[in-house]
Amino acid sequence: MKLVVAIVQDKDSNNLANALVKGNFKATKLASTGGFLKAGNTTFFIGTEDHKVDDVLTIIRDNCKNRDQLVAPISPMGGNADSYIPYPVNVKVGGATVFVLPVDQFERF
Amino acid sequence: MKLVVAIVQDKDSNNLANALVKGNFKATKLASTGGFLKAGNTTFFIGTEDHKVDDVLTIIRDNCKNRDQLVAPISPMGGNADSYIPYPVNVKVGGATVFVLPVDQFERF
Amino acid sequence: MKLVVAIVQDKDSNNLANALVKGNFKATKLASTGGFLKAGNTTFFIGTEDHKVDDVLTIIRDNCKNRDQLVAPISPMGGNADSYIPYPVNVKVGGATVFVLPVDQFERF
Ligand code: NI
Ligand code: NI
Ligand code: NI
Repeated sequence: MKLVVAIVQDKDSNNLANALVKGNFKATKLASTGGFLKAGNTTFFIGTEDHKVDDVLTIIRDNCKNRDQLVAPISPMGGNADSYIPYPVNVKVGGATVFVLPVDQFERF
Repeated sequence: MKLVVAIVQDKDSNNLANALVKGNFKATKLASTGGFLKAGNTTFFIGTEDHKVDDVLTIIRDNCKNRDQLVAPISPMGGNADSYIPYPVNVKVGGATVFVLPVDQFERF
Repeated sequence: MKLVVAIVQDKDSNNLANALVKGNFKATKLASTGGFLKAGNTTFFIGTEDHKVDDVLTIIRDNCKNRDQLVAPISPMGGNADSYIPYPVNVKVGGATVFVLPVDQFERF
């Protein structure tokens, strides 16, 4: 048994939760902030048998990996349209920090 | 030293906290949601010496185990009393998911 | 790799977070309550290489250790100044409970 601790961005947390349910993994979410991924992250605790750790890691990577995202420009308020260049810009989103912890004993009551 | 991570239902969390204090165990509570036990759960971190892990597990089971609970029927609003059968129903409540983690080093400052 | 779990008082948590950033350590904060240090604490998860665990522990101790603090007396409301003795009093503040957990696998995506 392993306890997978995954810190992910809030914006990826619903997708990750759904993908874990689909994969029959049990998880709980803890509200967390700052540090690993700046403000607004969520910490998942995912319990899994040893031989499924790679499956969990694949699900996390598929739903949370650091990636570029095109963001549409915001129209300038109140003009100065001369200097306004309306192209979308790349921003980095996502990312996950994952610790796989050994478990000495696992119980369900 | 072990760190016991226990995810329990919110409705059991006060009883568990009180029982842990009575047993002289130190614990901290983290707000958590979803997954292991559906919405509304609380995650406890309980530090304990190795030889008291069984005592902690007993306390968790005694206060949080999955069980039937008789729920009084809700009176029908606005009548249709003909079809109303006023017997209490069994619902499943409680349950706990517990991970006992090894600890390499423990410090209090 | 280790995962350092530190439960500290809320009042020390900003100083600890800043000191960890200064030391180039990555951490996430979880809202937590009660138990180890009474109400109002924060749980830090700090990932670190094995050989830097002592540096992390030093930072935690320097920023959170249990200590006396002189608290200015509160002026008596509505008089009875005869019995009022305006000396500052010592109160205990701070303190940290720290678990260093082994990590089987560490990933960043
Ligand atoms: Ni299996
Ligand atoms: Ni003992
Ligand atoms: Ni190094």
